[in-house]
Amino acid sequence: MEKKFVYTFGGGSAEGGESLRNLLGGKGAGLAEMSNLGIPVPAGFTITTEVCTYYYKHQASYPEGLREQVDQALKRIEQIMDARFGDAERPLLVSVRSGARMSMPGMMETVLNIGLTSRTLPGLISWTNNERFAYDAYRRLIMMYADVVMEKAEGIEPPEDQGIRLVLEREMDRMKEQRGVSLDTDLTAEDLKALVDIFLRKVEEVLGRPFPDDPYEQLWGGIGAVFRSWNGKRAVAYRRIEGIPDDWGTAVNVQAMVFGNTGERSATGVAFTRNPATGEPVFYGEWLPNAQGEDVVAGIRTPLPLNKAGKVGEAASLPSLEEMMPEVYAQLEEIRQKLERYYKDMQDIEFTIQEGTLWMLQTRTGKRNGTAAVRMAVDMCKEGLISREEALLRVKPEQLDELLHPMLDPKAESATTPLAKGLPAGPGGAVGRIVFTADDAEAWAKRGERVVLVRAETSPEDVHGMHAAEAILTSKGGMTSHAALVARGWGKCCIVGCGELEIDSQGKTLRVRDVVLREGDWITLNGTKGVVYQGQLALLPADPQGNPWYNDLMEWADQIRKLGVRTNADTPDDAALARSFGAEGIGLCRTEHMFFDPQRIMAMREMIVAETPEERRKAIMKLLPFQREDFLGILRAMEGLPVTIRLLDPPLHEFVNLSPDQVQQLAKEMGIPLERLQARIDQLHEANPMLGHRGCRLGITYPEISEMQARAIFEAAAQLTKEGKSVFPEVMIPLVGSVKEFEDQKRIVEDVAREIQQREGVSFPYLIGTMIEIPRACVVADQIATQAQFFSFGTNDLTQTTFGFSRDDAGSFLPVYLEKRILAADPFQTLDQEGVGELMAMGVRKGKGARKDLKVGICGEHGGDPASIAFCHKLEMDYVSCSPYRVPIARLAAAQAALSE
Amino acid sequence: MEKKFVYTFGGGSAEGGESLRNLLGGKGAGLAEMSNLGIPVPAGFTITTEVCTYYYKHQASYPEGLREQVDQALKRIEQIMDARFGDAERPLLVSVRSGARMSMPGMMETVLNIGLTSRTLPGLISWTNNERFAYDAYRRLIMMYADVVMEKAEGIEPPEDQGIRLVLEREMDRMKEQRGVSLDTDLTAEDLKALVDIFLRKVEEVLGRPFPDDPYEQLWGGIGAVFRSWNGKRAVAYRRIEGIPDDWGTAVNVQAMVFGNTGERSATGVAFTRNPATGEPVFYGEWLPNAQGEDVVAGIRTPLPLNKAGKVGEAASLPSLEEMMPEVYAQLEEIRQKLERYYKDMQDIEFTIQEGTLWMLQTRTGKRNGTAAVRMAVDMCKEGLISREEALLRVKPEQLDELLHPMLDPKAESATTPLAKGLPAGPGGAVGRIVFTADDAEAWAKRGERVVLVRAETSPEDVHGMHAAEAILTSKGGMTSHAALVARGWGKCCIVGCGELEIDSQGKTLRVRDVVLREGDWITLNGTKGVVYQGQLALLPADPQGNPWYNDLMEWADQIRKLGVRTNADTPDDAALARSFGAEGIGLCRTEHMFFDPQRIMAMREMIVAETPEERRKAIMKLLPFQREDFLGILRAMEGLPVTIRLLDPPLHEFVNLSPDQVQQLAKEMGIPLERLQARIDQLHEANPMLGHRGCRLGITYPEISEMQARAIFEAAAQLTKEGKSVFPEVMIPLVGSVKEFEDQKRIVEDVAREIQQREGVSFPYLIGTMIEIPRACVVADQIATQAQFFSFGTNDLTQTTFGFSRDDAGSFLPVYLEKRILAADPFQTLDQEGVGELMAMGVRKGKGARKDLKVGICGEHGGDPASIAFCHKLEMDYVSCSPYRVPIARLAAAQAALSE
Repeated sequence: MEKKFVYTFGGGSAEGGESLRNLLGGKGAGLAEMSNLGIPVPAGFTITTEVCTYYYKHQASYPEGLREQVDQALKRIEQIMDARFGDAERPLLVSVRSGARMSMPGMMETVLNIGLTSRTLPGLISWTNNERFAYDAYRRLIMMYADVVMEKAEGIEPPEDQGIRLVLEREMDRMKEQRGVSLDTDLTAEDLKALVDIFLRKVEEVLGRPFPDDPYEQLWGGIGAVFRSWNGKRAVAYRRIEGIPDDWGTAVNVQAMVFGNTGERSATGVAFTRNPATGEPVFYGEWLPNAQGEDVVAGIRTPLPLNKAGKVGEAASLPSLEEMMPEVYAQLEEIRQKLERYYKDMQDIEFTIQEGTLWMLQTRTGKRNGTAAVRMAVDMCKEGLISREEALLRVKPEQLDELLHPMLDPKAESATTPLAKGLPAGPGGAVGRIVFTADDAEAWAKRGERVVLVRAETSPEDVHGMHAAEAILTSKGGMTSHAALVARGWGKCCIVGCGELEIDSQGKTLRVRDVVLREGDWITLNGTKGVVYQGQLALLPADPQGNPWYNDLMEWADQIRKLGVRTNADTPDDAALARSFGAEGIGLCRTEHMFFDPQRIMAMREMIVAETPEERRKAIMKLLPFQREDFLGILRAMEGLPVTIRLLDPPLHEFVNLSPDQVQQLAKEMGIPLERLQARIDQLHEANPMLGHRGCRLGITYPEISEMQARAIFEAAAQLTKEGKSVFPEVMIPLVGSVKEFEDQKRIVEDVAREIQQREGVSFPYLIGTMIEIPRACVVADQIATQAQFFSFGTNDLTQTTFGFSRDDAGSFLPVYLEKRILAADPFQTLDQEGVGELMAMGVRKGKGARKDLKVGICGEHGGDPASIAFCHKLEMDYVSCSPYRVPIARLAAAQAALSE
Repeated sequence: MEKKFVYTFGGGSAEGGESLRNLLGGKGAGLAEMSNLGIPVPAGFTITTEVCTYYYKHQASYPEGLREQVDQALKRIEQIMDARFGDAERPLLVSVRSGARMSMPGMMETVLNIGLTSRTLPGLISWTNNERFAYDAYRRLIMMYADVVMEKAEGIEPPEDQGIRLVLEREMDRMKEQRGVSLDTDLTAEDLKALVDIFLRKVEEVLGRPFPDDPYEQLWGGIGAVFRSWNGKRAVAYRRIEGIPDDWGTAVNVQAMVFGNTGERSATGVAFTRNPATGEPVFYGEWLPNAQGEDVVAGIRTPLPLNKAGKVGEAASLPSLEEMMPEVYAQLEEIRQKLERYYKDMQDIEFTIQEGTLWMLQTRTGKRNGTAAVRMAVDMCKEGLISREEALLRVKPEQLDELLHPMLDPKAESATTPLAKGLPAGPGGAVGRIVFTADDAEAWAKRGERVVLVRAETSPEDVHGMHAAEAILTSKGGMTSHAALVARGWGKCCIVGCGELEIDSQGKTLRVRDVVLREGDWITLNGTKGVVYQGQLALLPADPQGNPWYNDLMEWADQIRKLGVRTNADTPDDAALARSFGAEGIGLCRTEHMFFDPQRIMAMREMIVAETPEERRKAIMKLLPFQREDFLGILRAMEGLPVTIRLLDPPLHEFVNLSPDQVQQLAKEMGIPLERLQARIDQLHEANPMLGHRGCRLGITYPEISEMQARAIFEAAAQLTKEGKSVFPEVMIPLVGSVKEFEDQKRIVEDVAREIQQREGVSFPYLIGTMIEIPRACVVADQIATQAQFFSFGTNDLTQTTFGFSRDDAGSFLPVYLEKRILAADPFQTLDQEGVGELMAMGVRKGKGARKDLKVGICGEHGGDPASIAFCHKLEMDYVSCSPYRVPIARLAAAQAALSE
């Protein structure tokens, strides 16, 4: 049998349906399915995506048999619609539209009114008895076809301002000028008739060939244009961003035209079966009488509310379809219910009413925001439409972000022109006044001002100002820069790498092209999208716990997921926040941030410049009371839950990153010669600090540090145990690459634990484990697991060493890698499963092989990334750990991973 | 049956022998074997190393049954030696000596004359009829025993100058003073008798308990002291250095005393069965009449030559044993032959002659230098003692180094006090006058001076001066610093990281403690050991090709080895040198060094600061003629052999590592604003350049670079092909981590190759492959091998990323790691087989799985390390590649690897 390339629909039945979505595309599948459901759809047919693939593999030619199948299908339309293609009396007009497997809105081409020629025009006039309508249809066809088929699809690139569409629009403007009218609709039938003549002449003049007067030539021209638009610049760029494979191809839908603009008994509209902004189970949409679909989108006429429920705000006094055409509305309401029952999801539909008859032109699953997604999923489950499992799969974990952070009001945002764009490093919206230093941020915030801290980049010394600010905006740095990491940890709105900003922190000005902003000026950030606005935009507050649908969904997620969800938190506040978001423990408590407090950093610096172990011990032990307080706070906040505390990790020189003035001052304060201090600082300089003297290498060379930290942890644990609290500290040795490194540090930690338990006369449970964050640790995980009670994959560092990419430096080549598709995604955002993931799998396998009850988790940035969480589930890890604001996202992602098994 | 802990020997037979070396230690096994061979050995027994292990596992106690076995064995000695332990008439005296599996000379304890007590002393006097001898033996026992057993082994740490040995020595000095004599031997029997009394009193006074007067207490005291000395500081440190496992333990040898100091018919001596310095097959040794073994070692009396052949130089007029005791010498010569026939190797022996009777006290395989090792191995093979295979295994590959480089004359060296010690970065000896800058080095060398370039560290800009110098000495840097890498590549003597040097390059002085050296002063370097001497020491020239034994050995090695041996060479000179050493191709030709020539670096810098692809292309193409010349030279030098050329690898900023003055000058020369140049240089700065914008990341972001390099390679190949030469260029893409990176670069290289072959109308074979040097490449090697024709493991970088260690920064913790035994060896010197090696094994397995004929090699520093070469052989690699001077070493190591299968 010949291969089937064409699937018909309409007239109460269809050859295809939703099950053939990959072949028919989304639009074609929807039209076919609606036909099957008995919903009125103008008859038509779909040319499959396979033809598109064939077209690109065979130098823009079509497979054998296609033309015959198209002719056959066209005949079926003619029968159903009682009209004939190219016929002088009852001419059939068709639309030619794209339709890929996944929606690519506006990215490909459409041609309407195909079939209008000098021969069929009179027939349309006499049949509709509307000369103006017919000439208007004709001029629309010429304009669209000349642009899309004759120019763009042929690859002609005219000079700017010389494109055929612009040429024709100028002719239309001239006509309106001549007639002294301002709206297209004010042109008469005579005017349009004259305009059509001018259009036909201009097309031939500009493009060098006449506008085709043969309906079949028009049809195949349209089909070819749609296929070619699959590889148009916009479409390709969109696919890059959305990760849609190039070889999926688009289908082509050819469908009988119906017209909403034939008079007052005609209309057109778009609707959502539920409110896409709130999730409320209310029919929601807009319509326009006597209009074509494009008029609703164009926004020249104000659309009317679909129903009485939609008559709110400015629309309160406008007539609704429910009131104006009650029968049609009732029919639409019935279709709405039918579609939701069938698709079991909210649908985004388009319809046209021609002379009182309702035609459905499209149905597809509607896009919605996070709030709506959560509510719809939970509601539909409670309505019995979908199961709990389906409800859980219905919400993209990332969408929860919206519920957790204040968001910019989308309406305010769409009405404002962005000032600049950067990388979306911390989600949510924020409004504040510009300050340029951390100290200013703190000072302004103290007197009650909301501020946005704007800097080229941030360093650990800026942390107090970052904390005081509503949001952080930097001109340099990437998604894992200091600013980004800190902001994400706090769930703070943050945009980084906003290269357009020229920041003069001395002069306290910020320039973006010709806009100059000064300290105190208002600025608004959309950290979810990375967009910066000038001035103050409205914010919508966040209150997830007050949202019953959110609470239900999270509860269901917790029942299903197998992965535990912990948080990365360094302070009692963060810990408490994460706990309120459902964190089941701390997976990573970094201790280095604790050292940057001015009170403490001096002792740290003394320790660093110490020349003997005794001096070093003396200095480091000054930090003991502070650290003990830190751990008391955190262990108390996490009472009853495990808390993984990582021993000191960063290169020591980070603590003595000082200006010459500061060095001088420090030497004075410490009472040591400047030269000696400077020499020590120089000595600490490293060519590649990421691969340098850090992690357990610190604790091995300076055992006093590990001892002090262990002492602080266990003294805190002992004190809380005496208070009757249950604590579960887990001491994590960082950057281990061999079992001997681990043993060395383990011995120190165990000795201290034993000593303190004996001295204090209490006993508490504790674990000692390690971070797996360099490739060698994965390779010798079996050896390490003989000693370590848990593994926590530090995938940030593991990604760096597995790829040999420095996060701080990858900015110079990663963008090119993504653009050239050498990498599918930034491996610091989404786990590289075939490289890094393979090493992790090896680590888990070898580790569990050596110790059956080895506890395994992940605490890198990937711990909050849904795709990476799914991978961790597959590896049968015990938990993921992420920043507090990612905890709900991780809970849902973990449930989805369990469901996708 | 009870476990056997004690093995007897002597009297013409023994319970053990060489086959039980691990149990009996080297000394014990040798004594037993000599007994079995009928060689006269004082009777004795060996307590096994198992007892040592037991001792340490059981709180310094002995296994059950040991005492009985010792008593039994002691009885056997008494029978053979016709004397009784503790007997008042014919007292048996014994020595107690350590003896580990591997020789640890001087690291553990020995006690002689055990069994002398107030009861047995008269017996010894009457039996030997030599009162002076007996009291001398007694005072030696007290001195040694009090020190070794009563003080050290008990862990007593007296204040400096208060140790019992010093206390007793002071008493002896006082006695000599009183008697008005200067030599110990001038003290009379009466004197010694008085001294013994003083000694006994002092021991009790200082150590708080009497000297034991029970022979069994003495014996067990001695045994315990030997076991305890296994964990003495010196022994532990020695094991760390030599890589001897702690759990091997030492045996204890208890043996009847014989005395070489009973009169003129007695003597003692040491000998080698062949000359250990030259390998000549001549009996070589020294002796002293009327002396104990320690007297030969102490160096107070000048030892006499063993035989007539040894009467050369200063020894020419001294009496030889051969002349003085011809029968004993004949007996010794017979033993020499017997031992060589049995051991099939050169033996290092100790003997004592007591009243004309020869006793052998030790035989062990003798240490020898490289020259001697090669000659002995080849000679013994030709003598039929050993097979060719055994001959090849007899020489440590590292020992060949001596034959390849001029060496310091060991005699001159042993007579000179070192000035400083650093890391032995480039082997061999060198003598020259100090210069402090590269320009000075070049200028002085041009006028015929031999110079040593002394710097804090070197950079690529110093290369001309490094080349001109005899040797390079730096105060900073490690074994893989710039200076070390460059020097090793040239086979140049080099010492790095010599921290004691205070270099003032402005003032042109060099200070080591209180010695100040100035420009032009002479200095001598032993680069094999890392020792620096003041002044000029004698050098021995190198001429391996003129050494017939070396040539034979290399020929045999080539017949046996399976691994190919290539070289890392960047210039035609290096290539030719390596070829003369037997290199079978170039495994790594780095192209970046070629860019540092002043003529070229300007074009390189222009390329770097270019702002458009066109500017960049224009600049880079200026380098094409230079690069083509480079490759013409190298391909010509390697005609008929494969040449692997790596495309540009290092971070771009290395080319613009400039002082502010230089930046200003460059801006002027290039005619661009200073700010623009400085901004671009700042932009190139990287936090972790090792993980930054380098390797194929350069070629992917700047494809013009790869294109230019490919063009230079293939234009050179085309020209040589036209000249009738056969060339085999292999283009190597560096730092690949994913197959897509490789594909991107491969396409560029293939396009250029096709274009040039067509344009020039010639065809030549070429390969395109990649360096495997980051962990991800090993993990996805199967994917990469679908595209790459060869893999070359870049183990330097692979070690860095697998461990997360930066070579440049590891100096701050690696020494501690080695000291604490966290790492057994520096992984940059010897391949880490269980970590890095495991990833390599994965890479080879996956790579060959995807492409059966994949060519696999190694081109990191490890390619010249024998242990690493053995590992490469095991992985069935095709070749190793190393610096020219390592080529002979690699050839031998590869043969040994093949033999060890």
